[in-house]
Amino acid sequence: MSSGKILVAQGGGPTAVINQSLAGVVLEARRFRHVTRIYGALHGVRGIVNEDFVDLTQETSHNLELVANTPSSALGSTRDKPDLAYCHKIFEVLRAHEIEHFFYIGGNDSSDTVRIVSEEARKAGYPLRCIHIPKTIDNDLVGNDHTPGFPSAARFVAQAFAGANLDNASLPGIYVGVVMGRHAGFLTAASALGKKFPDDGPHLIYVPERVFDLEKFLADVKAAYERHGRCVIAVSEGIHDESGEAIATLLAKEVERDAHGNVQLSGTGALADLLCDEIKSKLGIKRVRGDTFGYLQRSFIGCVSDVDQREAREVGEKAVQFAMWGDRDGSVAIKRTGYYSVDYELMPLEAVAGKTRVMEDEFLSAEGTDVTDAFRLYLRPLLGSHMPDAYRLRPAPVEKILNK
Amino acid sequence: MSSGKILVAQGGGPTAVINQSLAGVVLEARRFRHVTRIYGALHGVRGIVNEDFVDLTQETSHNLELVANTPSSALGSTRDKPDLAYCHKIFEVLRAHEIEHFFYIGGNDSSDTVRIVSEEARKAGYPLRCIHIPKTIDNDLVGNDHTPGFPSAARFVAQAFAGANLDNASLPGIYVGVVMGRHAGFLTAASALGKKFPDDGPHLIYVPERVFDLEKFLADVKAAYERHGRCVIAVSEGIHDESGEAIATLLAKEVERDAHGNVQLSGTGALADLLCDEIKSKLGIKRVRGDTFGYLQRSFIGCVSDVDQREAREVGEKAVQFAMWGDRDGSVAIKRTGYYSVDYELMPLEAVAGKTRVMEDEFLSAEGTDVTDAFRLYLRPLLGSHMPDAYRLRPAPVEKILNK
Repeated sequence: MSSGKILVAQGGGPTAVINQSLAGVVLEARRFRHVTRIYGALHGVRGIVNEDFVDLTQETSHNLELVANTPSSALGSTRDKPDLAYCHKIFEVLRAHEIEHFFYIGGNDSSDTVRIVSEEARKAGYPLRCIHIPKTIDNDLVGNDHTPGFPSAARFVAQAFAGANLDNASLPGIYVGVVMGRHAGFLTAASALGKKFPDDGPHLIYVPERVFDLEKFLADVKAAYERHGRCVIAVSEGIHDESGEAIATLLAKEVERDAHGNVQLSGTGALADLLCDEIKSKLGIKRVRGDTFGYLQRSFIGCVSDVDQREAREVGEKAVQFAMWGDRDGSVAIKRTGYYSVDYELMPLEAVAGKTRVMEDEFLSAEGTDVTDAFRLYLRPLLGSHMPDAYRLRPAPVEKILNK
Repeated sequence: MSSGKILVAQGGGPTAVINQSLAGVVLEARRFRHVTRIYGALHGVRGIVNEDFVDLTQETSHNLELVANTPSSALGSTRDKPDLAYCHKIFEVLRAHEIEHFFYIGGNDSSDTVRIVSEEARKAGYPLRCIHIPKTIDNDLVGNDHTPGFPSAARFVAQAFAGANLDNASLPGIYVGVVMGRHAGFLTAASALGKKFPDDGPHLIYVPERVFDLEKFLADVKAAYERHGRCVIAVSEGIHDESGEAIATLLAKEVERDAHGNVQLSGTGALADLLCDEIKSKLGIKRVRGDTFGYLQRSFIGCVSDVDQREAREVGEKAVQFAMWGDRDGSVAIKRTGYYSVDYELMPLEAVAGKTRVMEDEFLSAEGTDVTDAFRLYLRPLLGSHMPDAYRLRPAPVEKILNK
């Protein structure tokens, strides 16, 4: 006799559309007659081991639709990375509550948690269907054309750089914008989609897929500044030297900023400030400004891709359909089938869990400071409808009288 | 015999709607038969002394409309603050080009430039009409209900905090967001409009109108953290101690960050990082994150108030009408006439020039870390249509089995 109980949870960093996937799971699961309860765990896996469950069967579909359009994880999230013992506890709670279907919306770490819980259940002979639902602004899940959350964050980054470029053109100088992405440069590279005119910034883009060399960086900036009279630079927080050491840490050591030389990558403006200091002191340029996009790029309310919204909803729906009509656990993956259309597959958990995708070589230019047309073509449809557009005056110069 | 020549320029920091005012001037001026040429000066007053003029008479009205919807100064801007000699040069160029009407879109400093140029013309007996058109995200021009550019920046700040609050609720900890505003706290206070539910952040707001006391700040943060299990804080870049010294400078001295103890307020993440360090070390809270909104808040493309767009267009139009139908120089000011409607007046340049408005006392709560309902009522209509809204699950708890 089936209990008909489902559990859904959200893990890792929030995105603009992660609640679409939650709504997709809940609303699709309600269509199945044998589903008796849909539980949500508060704050991800931590909420599971603590049995902090809420009954989503008692939520209106109207409010679920409104929550779907609200950014950040409505159930709360966690940074806990469960080990084997932790996963065993998760399984014990699922068994105690007679959960038969477990859906976990998250990134790399979350997929690995689903993999281990799935194995625990199999070893114990307990019939538990485990489905991982993809989500990450980093776009670093293997096997996916892209991941829900990334398109909306990419749209924010593109719009931010489009605006920063206009600001920089108005009051010329150097502008450094630091973007999230520890291993994969997709989000930083999205800054290129903010360009319209040939002399628009970002003029230089630095991603973790290429080794960062400070001398080359300064030479690049100098050349761009001499050419344009200004320079807009997109930098990934994850840039590192040949040995893999983070540039933020290296520069911090140089200025002996603190006793340990440790610099946190996210949630501080350290990398932007350190790079600006280098440009000011080594190139002697006066107007140098740095911004760290920080939490704005993943949490800003009111900047979302409609394509991303639709797909995030669909991966939630498909997860339930794969669970109900399929016969195996897995991770839902987005596959591109046209320009632009997608379909969804259920990949083996082992194929996704704990693996990191980085930018394909064909997406980065030979000199390593720009993206290719292949990347522009890849990203453009994901950004969605109604991208704001920048226009310029096309003015006729007036003859000088006094300064002839 | 009239030359029929008009000059328009843009000064100071760009805004999301400053090109609306430019389009307002150009399109309205075209309606007057005796206007023969409409010149634009590139990069503000610097473009005037260098005679870097473009002929806007040869720009299509269609493209002017598209430029009007593009953020940042389309003519370019400058940070030059002209003294008497500089203003004399401006006047000499205007006279050489037989300019009869001078429109300068800008903030405090720009209005002072207009005032001096107006006096120079009067002393020389040259018939020059000088009109200052208001613009500043700081909202610190006296005599105005509010200034064009502020509503759109305020909307960005409110949306940013609404999102940061959701992120912080999902992954609890301390979040510090640093907002522009050296003397006036209006923009920082706008963060309060991102709140919806009673326990939403920002839980604490610090503006330059109140003396900042580090000990009290830490006590406030501790109390909010104990109450909510998290804390979202909005801080103005201009917060200072009793002597007027910037907190960023004070904290930097304390950690002996550099040899001079000088910290630039804008374009660095220093203040946010220093406040986070204080919270971490003094309160022993682990998850503390800081963002400096930086240039995003004034340049982000795609976040604009339609009310702000309309009014920025109208101050440009009204400037031309005041110049053509009126008999004196002045500064266009926005007056509130209903909830919500406005009208425009031409104020004497001396009444505006070089003066700074700060937040009225009735806008700040007694404890100094929140705004009043009077401020909410003041700001809400300015933010415009279609403000994004946040929704929550209203869940029913599930009984625990293992952790009873």
